[in-house]
Amino acid sequence: MSFELSLNTGTTPHLSLEQAAEAVAASGLKHIGPWRHLLEQGGGAEKAAGIIAGAGLTTTTLCRGGFLTPADPEGRRAALESNRAAIREAATIGTAELIMVVGGLPAAAHLLGARSSAAEQNAADKDIIGARGRVAEGIAELVPYAAEHGVRLVLEPLHPMYAADRAVLSTLGEALDLAAPHPAETVGVVVDTFHVWWDPQLREMIARAGAEHRIASYQVCDFNLPLAADALKSRGMMGDGYVDFPSISRWVAEAGYTGPVEVEIFNQQINDQDAATTLETMKQRYAQLVLPALREGDQHLDAQVR
Amino acid sequence: MSFELSLNTGTTPHLSLEQAAEAVAASGLKHIGPWRHLLEQGGGAEKAAGIIAGAGLTTTTLCRGGFLTPADPEGRRAALESNRAAIREAATIGTAELIMVVGGLPAAAHLLGARSSAAEQNAADKDIIGARGRVAEGIAELVPYAAEHGVRLVLEPLHPMYAADRAVLSTLGEALDLAAPHPAETVGVVVDTFHVWWDPQLREMIARAGAEHRIASYQVCDFNLPLAADALKSRGMMGDGYVDFPSISRWVAEAGYTGPVEVEIFNQQINDQDAATTLETMKQRYAQLVLPALREGDQHLDAQVR
Repeated sequence: MSFELSLNTGTTPHLSLEQAAEAVAASGLKHIGPWRHLLEQGGGAEKAAGIIAGAGLTTTTLCRGGFLTPADPEGRRAALESNRAAIREAATIGTAELIMVVGGLPAAAHLLGARSSAAEQNAADKDIIGARGRVAEGIAELVPYAAEHGVRLVLEPLHPMYAADRAVLSTLGEALDLAAPHPAETVGVVVDTFHVWWDPQLREMIARAGAEHRIASYQVCDFNLPLAADALKSRGMMGDGYVDFPSISRWVAEAGYTGPVEVEIFNQQINDQDAATTLETMKQRYAQLVLPALREGDQHLDAQVR
Repeated sequence: MSFELSLNTGTTPHLSLEQAAEAVAASGLKHIGPWRHLLEQGGGAEKAAGIIAGAGLTTTTLCRGGFLTPADPEGRRAALESNRAAIREAATIGTAELIMVVGGLPAAAHLLGARSSAAEQNAADKDIIGARGRVAEGIAELVPYAAEHGVRLVLEPLHPMYAADRAVLSTLGEALDLAAPHPAETVGVVVDTFHVWWDPQLREMIARAGAEHRIASYQVCDFNLPLAADALKSRGMMGDGYVDFPSISRWVAEAGYTGPVEVEIFNQQINDQDAATTLETMKQRYAQLVLPALREGDQHLDAQVR
């Protein structure tokens, strides 16, 4: 089956993996995309694999590796080690798709809880081109290990409002350029509507991603205004914000993507509410705003291919 | 003289035009970039021209025209009329450069105080491609009037976090594409560091803007984190945030820009403080982080041309 809905556990942060898997199964969905900390809290990746399989679900992605921008050797070594662990965990829980949030500027490290010093505020730490170079190096270093484990590094362009503190990778075009030196089965990209809806090159870059066989995941949620006090929580339920879901979904299907569609919403109100309510609303909005356009794009592609 | 500093009055919102002009002159600067509402509050553009000249200053830009995205005929007519008035005002106060903030999605109009209805929330109002098309049409309609008045429409790409509610124009490349059908002396672009610092195509697009003779203004301020509760006020004094001023300033000068450099900072703390303090800090940070790189880029360009 094409275009099946999946719950990213970022949408239900108060649930354990077991609770999330139960809620997903109870709602009639068949897929889940867990965050790594849930694996750790639940006793490791093997146990997590059992929980997911036991609920009759498959795993669509693992969130997340990345954070490859540290400039110091120790930070770099720790980042690579954490990513190798994430690659093993993805293989163990049975997904090929490891979502990669590449990391921000070293100057912003203190915002994420790392230790900070006056020196971290100097000009070198604001060198975004240098930081992007370190991401490219880190990906190159991880590719053989990912390939050995049958895991794909899925580059996630984040909205430019997070370029300083979360990801110096801001557009789908930049993600495709970064992926280009590597095989499509080992480095892919994710299209997350919240992050890319505004991009004037979006349609063209989704088509390119499809032609290059790089689309590893399609994630949907809305862009809400006003921005939340915690900017990370400005994501909304599909239909509540400003994203043109029918257009973007049609482009993704026309690019040949037929895989699962994940819903990942960081939003205080949605995160606090009952998971069953969230899942019900997700299903309704998906059926209304996303799925018809995916099917339309898929038929359009079929018609062209025939 | 090249690269002279200018105060955009958005930085000192509590001052009248007369007070701002006095503060600028007292600080030893020679340029000011006023917002339109100060002209109106001060008794019109002719009186404003007298105030600015009386303080011994020149006008670097007028902020702002734009908001060309309404879909309804009445909203469209009102937008064009307001822009024609802005063109006349720019000519009257003696600047060729009218900054254009092109407007957001119709679905976001209620956030900006316009009347709202359920119908405004429909899918058509989230059609960002359609909104961009209306911007292109509006610019085409205004170009002859601007040319008659010797005024340049200066397209401002805004940070993608404002794509829904302020400007569907999000990158310098998109601004240059939008400008392309029109003469460079009538449609230009502004490079505002806050809005474009994250763009992976920035260096290439600044070079293109220079080659196409479109750089009409260089505006500097920093990108601060965390984002302010009012996202518009997340701009910071140069050096306080994450922008790599030396790199971007060098690129701007290498692209051949030698004009004034405006400081436009919306930031509650800076906006509330004494204007003399703000102007003093501006001058120091500019001398430290921006001007040396502008001069370096300018010399590099000179060496290439010779």
